[in-house]
Amino acid sequence: MNSAVRTIDPTSDAAIAASVAPRPIEEIGAGLGVPAEALFRYGHDKAKIALPFARTAEAKADGKLILVTAISPTPAGEGKTTTTIGLGDALAHAGKRVAIALREPSLGPVFGSKGGATGGGHAQIIPMQDINLHFTGDFHAISAAHNLLAAAIDNHVYWGNELGIDTRRINWRRVVDLNDRALRSVVVGLGGPGNGFPREDGFDITVASEVMAIFCLARSLEDMEERLGRMVVAQTRTRQPVIAAQLKVTGAMTALLRDAFQPNLVQTLEGTPALVHGGPFANIAHGCNSVMATRTALGLADYVVTEAGFGADLGAEKFLDIKCRQAGLAPSVVVIVATVRALKMHGGVAQKDLAPENVAAVTLGAANLVRHIENIGQFGVPAVVAINRFTSDTPAEIAAIEAACGEVGARVHLCTHWADGSAGALSLANDVVRLADGPSAFHPLYASNLPLVEKIDAVAKKIYRAGSVAIEPGALKKLGEFEALGFGDLPVCMAKTQYSFSADPSRRGAPEGFVLPVRDVRLSAGAGFVVVLCGEVMTMPGLPSRPAAENIFVDETGFIGGVF
Amino acid sequence: MNSAVRTIDPTSDAAIAASVAPRPIEEIGAGLGVPAEALFRYGHDKAKIALPFARTAEAKADGKLILVTAISPTPAGEGKTTTTIGLGDALAHAGKRVAIALREPSLGPVFGSKGGATGGGHAQIIPMQDINLHFTGDFHAISAAHNLLAAAIDNHVYWGNELGIDTRRINWRRVVDLNDRALRSVVVGLGGPGNGFPREDGFDITVASEVMAIFCLARSLEDMEERLGRMVVAQTRTRQPVIAAQLKVTGAMTALLRDAFQPNLVQTLEGTPALVHGGPFANIAHGCNSVMATRTALGLADYVVTEAGFGADLGAEKFLDIKCRQAGLAPSVVVIVATVRALKMHGGVAQKDLAPENVAAVTLGAANLVRHIENIGQFGVPAVVAINRFTSDTPAEIAAIEAACGEVGARVHLCTHWADGSAGALSLANDVVRLADGPSAFHPLYASNLPLVEKIDAVAKKIYRAGSVAIEPGALKKLGEFEALGFGDLPVCMAKTQYSFSADPSRRGAPEGFVLPVRDVRLSAGAGFVVVLCGEVMTMPGLPSRPAAENIFVDETGFIGGVF
Repeated sequence: MNSAVRTIDPTSDAAIAASVAPRPIEEIGAGLGVPAEALFRYGHDKAKIALPFARTAEAKADGKLILVTAISPTPAGEGKTTTTIGLGDALAHAGKRVAIALREPSLGPVFGSKGGATGGGHAQIIPMQDINLHFTGDFHAISAAHNLLAAAIDNHVYWGNELGIDTRRINWRRVVDLNDRALRSVVVGLGGPGNGFPREDGFDITVASEVMAIFCLARSLEDMEERLGRMVVAQTRTRQPVIAAQLKVTGAMTALLRDAFQPNLVQTLEGTPALVHGGPFANIAHGCNSVMATRTALGLADYVVTEAGFGADLGAEKFLDIKCRQAGLAPSVVVIVATVRALKMHGGVAQKDLAPENVAAVTLGAANLVRHIENIGQFGVPAVVAINRFTSDTPAEIAAIEAACGEVGARVHLCTHWADGSAGALSLANDVVRLADGPSAFHPLYASNLPLVEKIDAVAKKIYRAGSVAIEPGALKKLGEFEALGFGDLPVCMAKTQYSFSADPSRRGAPEGFVLPVRDVRLSAGAGFVVVLCGEVMTMPGLPSRPAAENIFVDETGFIGGVF
Repeated sequence: MNSAVRTIDPTSDAAIAASVAPRPIEEIGAGLGVPAEALFRYGHDKAKIALPFARTAEAKADGKLILVTAISPTPAGEGKTTTTIGLGDALAHAGKRVAIALREPSLGPVFGSKGGATGGGHAQIIPMQDINLHFTGDFHAISAAHNLLAAAIDNHVYWGNELGIDTRRINWRRVVDLNDRALRSVVVGLGGPGNGFPREDGFDITVASEVMAIFCLARSLEDMEERLGRMVVAQTRTRQPVIAAQLKVTGAMTALLRDAFQPNLVQTLEGTPALVHGGPFANIAHGCNSVMATRTALGLADYVVTEAGFGADLGAEKFLDIKCRQAGLAPSVVVIVATVRALKMHGGVAQKDLAPENVAAVTLGAANLVRHIENIGQFGVPAVVAINRFTSDTPAEIAAIEAACGEVGARVHLCTHWADGSAGALSLANDVVRLADGPSAFHPLYASNLPLVEKIDAVAKKIYRAGSVAIEPGALKKLGEFEALGFGDLPVCMAKTQYSFSADPSRRGAPEGFVLPVRDVRLSAGAGFVVVLCGEVMTMPGLPSRPAAENIFVDETGFIGGVF
């Protein structure tokens, strides 16, 4: 038995969520025009939308798309997911036909320290415990598909290695949906000839799998299988790429992913429909929910609110340059979430000193917010600011934000959805509708046919405001190789710290003129982007000294406590 | 794309299964008295029985329990699962209120070579592709719970190792539900101090996890968590056991297993309800479906047909001595499945020479069957023989079996359920009802309070007919330690080759007087048995040179082909 006291904090997200009885999922589906027979139910309050129905909806996809993004993250937090949910609820409250599209949580953060991904307070999606744990099994399916390919590679080598795979150059690692640092770097195949050829290997967390990225970008099962087949998994002794299709298990991988590929339908505490589906890493991948979910939602609702990972320099840029480009999406409005406390940190205040009023710091830190607003403008999409309000925020601090935003023509809305649900985001919702129904002229930041180096340059200089880009010679050579192999038209997927516009996480605010280092590049041929590594990227987190898992339990009624 | 031709063989199990439209799972539930609101549905044709309802049913558990077991397996095959399903269908056809209880398939064999576990021909459970792939996610939940504990152990060592775990003596390996020989023996924690302490480790297939065994023996979530906490996962430098409870994640593990613990409900091709739940290894564990499923089925139906792994010497013995003892079950009848072809192999015929009639070989090989019949009698339960008939079987061969069985008072029934469904197992069903409604006086083979060595002796001599048992000194010492620690009352779980009564897989038929070697013993303190290793046990299979995964695909309608 755990030593922790097993009681439910009545102010916790779990307690608030438990106070609301979810509506039958058939009712939620019916609200979007999904008939019960097109719902593949998982119990009473979760369902997948059957693929044939989803395909018809996504082919239409004519709703207005609203992206929620944020300032550069700080330890003070922003509340991007709660704002996405609160805005969706407020649009529904205003009588709009709306759907929310979100990423699925990973078990790693749930058991680690980051927490779940189902919002908080009175802006949550439910059933929150289920969604934060196995949900409908999508991540398990992705793990199984990924690891089947890994097993097939070593098995191919074992049985004669007809493809001539160089066991030193197998880049297809294994995955597990947990934080487990001991698996970052391992040696497999030990124990004698019967167990294969010893070689270096490692495990990533499932969300870092290219299968996850493909799952979230594929337009159909056929498209998914083709993308899976294109993945480069190894090289031969003569450095020729070995692709997944050569291992002959992409059919079985697709079979493992068939059910998972159907978008999941759940609801907010206020009964607003939410499609929660897929969840790729936001550094080595593009960090947003599946194209299937977003397009299906756009086919079913008039307004779709979705979010992207990290701050707008990474999450929104990738959403716009990778996801929207690949999926034929054109967002109508971008909402940028900020908090007074986080802007103070961007203005140089330490986390322990956030409590007292500090208008000067807010004004200084607002430069980060203003930069993100300007950046969204470069994509031709109108932006609006949502301040996720804390009771400690003062009128003068808020006025400082409004003044800074006013200079670049962005409106600011104070939001209290965390405490008040939809009622706390009505002014934001009204403005979002006004902007969404007005003109928008979305275009990606750079053209697909630009050389890869120039694409990196465009993001670095236009979005990050780097003075220059320093690409390691090895990385530069690889970029040339990718172009020679016919991958020059792919967008770039920048893997940079989320805490700064620069590659230095300690440089908060709005630095400019710095050198952006490019350490390495990787081809994600199946996902369809070139990953640009601007620093160390951790693809397998570790658990903290007191993992959140220690607080989780099932009580005698079957209620799961301790999930926040 | 796979190179394999993507067509469906119209005589395949998949094609036969696809020709039947499954009835809505609510109808199947209603037939057992399970109301729709007590069904946690997974789509239209799969459901879990909600735990509160299942608990009420299993507390009653007053149906008649029929165990299907088999002769010692040979490469010729027996058809135990098809017989279990065919008998269930035949009982339903005869108007009985019946439920089938079966194990869930593992992805390892599905993608390897052994195949699925959903029966065959006209005796199948459906939806067969779903059941053979993720089904309701139970094995994924078990994998996640198992690996969370593994991560917690290395994390504990990383953050200071307060428990003083000796990293050379961590016996809690990791699991994956795939055949992946490269993971049998690995070194983890490489790559520097940030990744932990390098140590030897390895992966088992999920069905070999003690979590799986516990899942299948626990009577409630509370019981499950207590059992999880008792598992010995490591030793300290002074050889003191470290148990899972000390890692403080058994609450989170139970939360991961909460939904999975509810028995799954599906149906046969003829609409007979089947509870398919859990699937532990039959060598280092007890090899039968969950106690929850069996007891719930007994509470809902008048007759429950279930099966045990391997041949009767292993599967039935463990079913009776471990599962029935722990779960308070008393079977009414045991059905022993045999085929003419398999008995020929026990009579010394090679697989390639099975076609011609060979009455002498059948008579010789029937000694294996007769031995199993006699053994079942030692448990006080009546036995009946089911011959899973092949068209090549001759009347003289069948007469030889009948003659041999007649000498020990066992009736023989010719069954053609594979070809004919329930109609092919009616005589068997009638006899099973007659025996089930007659007297039965089940008792385990040995008393719980016997010393562990004497329990091993009882199984070896009474069931296997060994002349003597040779226990390695190290194993003998450990048995004494287990008894000193208070585990002397546990039953023994024999891990021996399934191909022979002896420990030598090449000795078919009915050998006797041999020496049974006991190489090692292991304590499964959570599952509640002492594993007795009578040879090498493979807990992570490998893939063959042409894995079955290469044939699996999704067609344009979403149909999954190539799963047999």
